Amino acid sequence: MDIRHYIDTRRKLIDTALEKYLPAEKGALAEHIKAMRYSLFAGGKRVRPILCLAAAESVKDFNNDYPAAVMLTACALECIHTYSLIHDDLPAMDDDDLRRGKPTSHVVFGEAGAILAGDSLLTYAFELLSKNAAESVSAPDRLRIISLISKAAGPEGMAGGQFLDLTHEDKEIEYDMLREIHSRKTGALITAAVQTGAVLGNSSAEEFQALTLYGIQIGLAFQIIDDLLNVEGTEAQLGKAAGSDAANNKATYPAMFGVDKTRLKAREAIQKALAALDGFDERAGMLRELAQYIISRKR
Amino acid sequence: MDIRHYIDTRRKLIDTALEKYLPAEKGALAEHIKAMRYSLFAGGKRVRPILCLAAAESVKDFNNDYPAAVMLTACALECIHTYSLIHDDLPAMDDDDLRRGKPTSHVVFGEAGAILAGDSLLTYAFELLSKNAAESVSAPDRLRIISLISKAAGPEGMAGGQFLDLTHEDKEIEYDMLREIHSRKTGALITAAVQTGAVLGNSSAEEFQALTLYGIQIGLAFQIIDDLLNVEGTEAQLGKAAGSDAANNKATYPAMFGVDKTRLKAREAIQKALAALDGFDERAGMLRELAQYIISRKR
Repeated sequence: MDIRHYIDTRRKLIDTALEKYLPAEKGALAEHIKAMRYSLFAGGKRVRPILCLAAAESVKDFNNDYPAAVMLTACALECIHTYSLIHDDLPAMDDDDLRRGKPTSHVVFGEAGAILAGDSLLTYAFELLSKNAAESVSAPDRLRIISLISKAAGPEGMAGGQFLDLTHEDKEIEYDMLREIHSRKTGALITAAVQTGAVLGNSSAEEFQALTLYGIQIGLAFQIIDDLLNVEGTEAQLGKAAGSDAANNKATYPAMFGVDKTRLKAREAIQKALAALDGFDERAGMLRELAQYIISRKR
Repeated sequence: MDIRHYIDTRRKLIDTALEKYLPAEKGALAEHIKAMRYSLFAGGKRVRPILCLAAAESVKDFNNDYPAAVMLTACALECIHTYSLIHDDLPAMDDDDLRRGKPTSHVVFGEAGAILAGDSLLTYAFELLSKNAAESVSAPDRLRIISLISKAAGPEGMAGGQFLDLTHEDKEIEYDMLREIHSRKTGALITAAVQTGAVLGNSSAEEFQALTLYGIQIGLAFQIIDDLLNVEGTEAQLGKAAGSDAANNKATYPAMFGVDKTRLKAREAIQKALAALDGFDERAGMLRELAQYIISRKR
């Protein structure tokens, strides 16, 4: 299958599942649900859910028919990613007014509305993950998925990474700290997306380990490219203010290494990600293509 | 066992477990973990974890020796409760500077620090609930616990309740809305504490239903007494600004019914809670005592 076609069809499947699983905008809570949905359907690329599906397919045939547990996990990953964007954009955090070309949550729903929308998306992810889906994925495996995702999103993962990012603004930092910030803030959830896909595909311990390596390198490459786009991209391409990292005095790969060496580092990470898949058969084709896609993306 | 002794010993067990299960304040994340711990150990009454333990004991003998899954659930409930206090106190929400006699999280750690401490406590609760505890509680029951808690905390529960509370400030509201706000914002997690205790005690379907009823009424009584204390208590007793509900133009039971009728409503709820336990033997003794304790509390 062509990678563009794969991404387009999976994105649609994920959007349909999100539409189905999210609460409806009605009753006294309509405005709150609306705020959750606003950011969830604001044009996200669905990178994490797609990586989850592709990882599951790299070890098991699904024949384009994903069981509910797979789609619920994919949706939960996107809910958590979206919550993190809403909170990161808050005035007390990165103070961004524009995201994916649209006004950010707090601009539309106010600060309290945005904080609560984020809180609810985060909590709802675990409601989705614990939903009674009566099917093939075992209860211990579903607990393992919850464990992987909560660790990736929590104090030692994404939330801790955002803390480090904020506390190191305006500071000279070492390369080790730059890596730690990136690996917690962006890498952890991307790795968890791949790992939960592995669990959903009933991977062997060796496959799980290889996919974890793939996930770590993909996460790294993704963030390096994000840093590059922030320098090189235009506001129209990015849908958010270009150059905002520099304006916020954030440590980035281009600031530390220059553009050319940064691009090289992204390529190295992608090479390592592909090498991790060496023992996999053609079912890992989409994961391989996604690695190339991540390095060539323009937004 | 005397109820005061029961509460004191359980509170200590819970504090010890929280100390054990929370990440240590070290490394680059030390300040973030410190913020999580600051609010968690700021003198909370541990009402939800204690209700969870007492509910579990109402259907099963534990002989003062709770398995890890029970303590992990108790700790998770307290993490979620604490996160909700941190976010509720934020300037964009209720804007409270004092809680339990101490400066609130955002006063000490800044707004971003407080938002992230709350986010991490919420996420960490699910890490605790999915922790590999190799023991008696089955994986499906542990998923059921995650489902009960995430529903109680999410958009249709606590977070939704806080949204309704904020959006109905300064407005005339009907009794139905007052009940809905209370039942979502405070009642849902208290009910879930009792329900998860029931699951941990391996309750029958009938016992679960009775304990759910008990939890709903206890949650209602708890909030009514909270409203009363906010009117009648002093800042020294409460550890927070007295009369803050009136100052924020929040709808409360005393504002709607006056103090005497409000007290009567609390008593009615406690009577209903006790009636729900009619079919239970002496193992429900502590749950019965806790009902009386909740209505007589001074803070």
